[in-house]
Amino acid sequence: MTQKQGGPRRKEDIFAATLDMLGSLGFDSLTVEGVAQRSGVNKTTIYRWWSSKSELLRDALLHSPILTFDLADTGSLRGDLTALVEQIQHLLDDEHRRTVVEAALVGAVRHEAMRELVISFLDDRFGRHQPLFERAVARGDLPPDVDPAPLVDALAGALWLRILVRRGEVAEAYTRDLVGMLMDGVTRSAGPSH
Amino acid sequence: MTQKQGGPRRKEDIFAATLDMLGSLGFDSLTVEGVAQRSGVNKTTIYRWWSSKSELLRDALLHSPILTFDLADTGSLRGDLTALVEQIQHLLDDEHRRTVVEAALVGAVRHEAMRELVISFLDDRFGRHQPLFERAVARGDLPPDVDPAPLVDALAGALWLRILVRRGEVAEAYTRDLVGMLMDGVTRSAGPSH
Repeated sequence: MTQKQGGPRRKEDIFAATLDMLGSLGFDSLTVEGVAQRSGVNKTTIYRWWSSKSELLRDALLHSPILTFDLADTGSLRGDLTALVEQIQHLLDDEHRRTVVEAALVGAVRHEAMRELVISFLDDRFGRHQPLFERAVARGDLPPDVDPAPLVDALAGALWLRILVRRGEVAEAYTRDLVGMLMDGVTRSAGPSH
Repeated sequence: MTQKQGGPRRKEDIFAATLDMLGSLGFDSLTVEGVAQRSGVNKTTIYRWWSSKSELLRDALLHSPILTFDLADTGSLRGDLTALVEQIQHLLDDEHRRTVVEAALVGAVRHEAMRELVISFLDDRFGRHQPLFERAVARGDLPPDVDPAPLVDALAGALWLRILVRRGEVAEAYTRDLVGMLMDGVTRSAGPSH
């Protein structure tokens, strides 16, 4: 195997073909053979790197640039969470990327193998968001004993219901209200000062 | 048509058969013919009451007792939201009811017709929750200008991610943290006093 064959660009092609197939056909119909065809990479080569469709899909979800977004460091927890919501919105505004996310979430509800992959993905992204909360604790924006899990669940879950289920617009006011409520609480979040 | 044929018990049988089929086969494979077979009610009779599969499914989602829960009036917004989370958990703890909810949510992402039904259902339930927020405003628990939509989205979305995607346990601490965060804000929600 030459360096070129295992190089990052070829892997990116394979990941792109994998997520493309997941989005268009769903988890059931995704096959290594189909990925080989779509990416133009030999099936044997793909199997040399990943032992199964699930292993391939795990790496594609974790490492493909289409599901990656940069975390902003805005200097405040409110700013960082607002930027995070905007990045998720931006990702879901793109039809191709939205289709991949939908197929993964639908698959997670229906298939245990896909659910495990989605949980790995969520854990990975959650880990990447840790610096955001560490900075907030260091600044005194967040008490050190807060578990950020319900915060991330509420943020991501609200966007899922709003964008993927209701197909609603996420206006600036909605983002501000959502982040404001999570920051300050619903009992204090009203009024023009927020 | 006698009163007995159109009676509430027969409609309940039809609704139960409809949701049962939705849960086991999904939106695609749900047919009025199948509902007729499963409920033992003549297909012509079903078409006399509902002009299409979508109309039947809409009424089944809205009116079947399996997706209904009573709203508690505990005397505080925190208590009412905690009771609401516990009722949703209780609903999703039941495998049959969870399967119906999953099929509806999966269908909503994949089919426009199903999405419209789920949106009708969410709007209906949201409407039924209004008294909870009206009581909170009347008591002074909630500022009158708060839009409860992001609150309900965050609550329901967090439970969806936690229970349906991650298949995680919802311990008492999680419910308390989630409701506490939505009530008081994440910046104030830590510590044993909450």
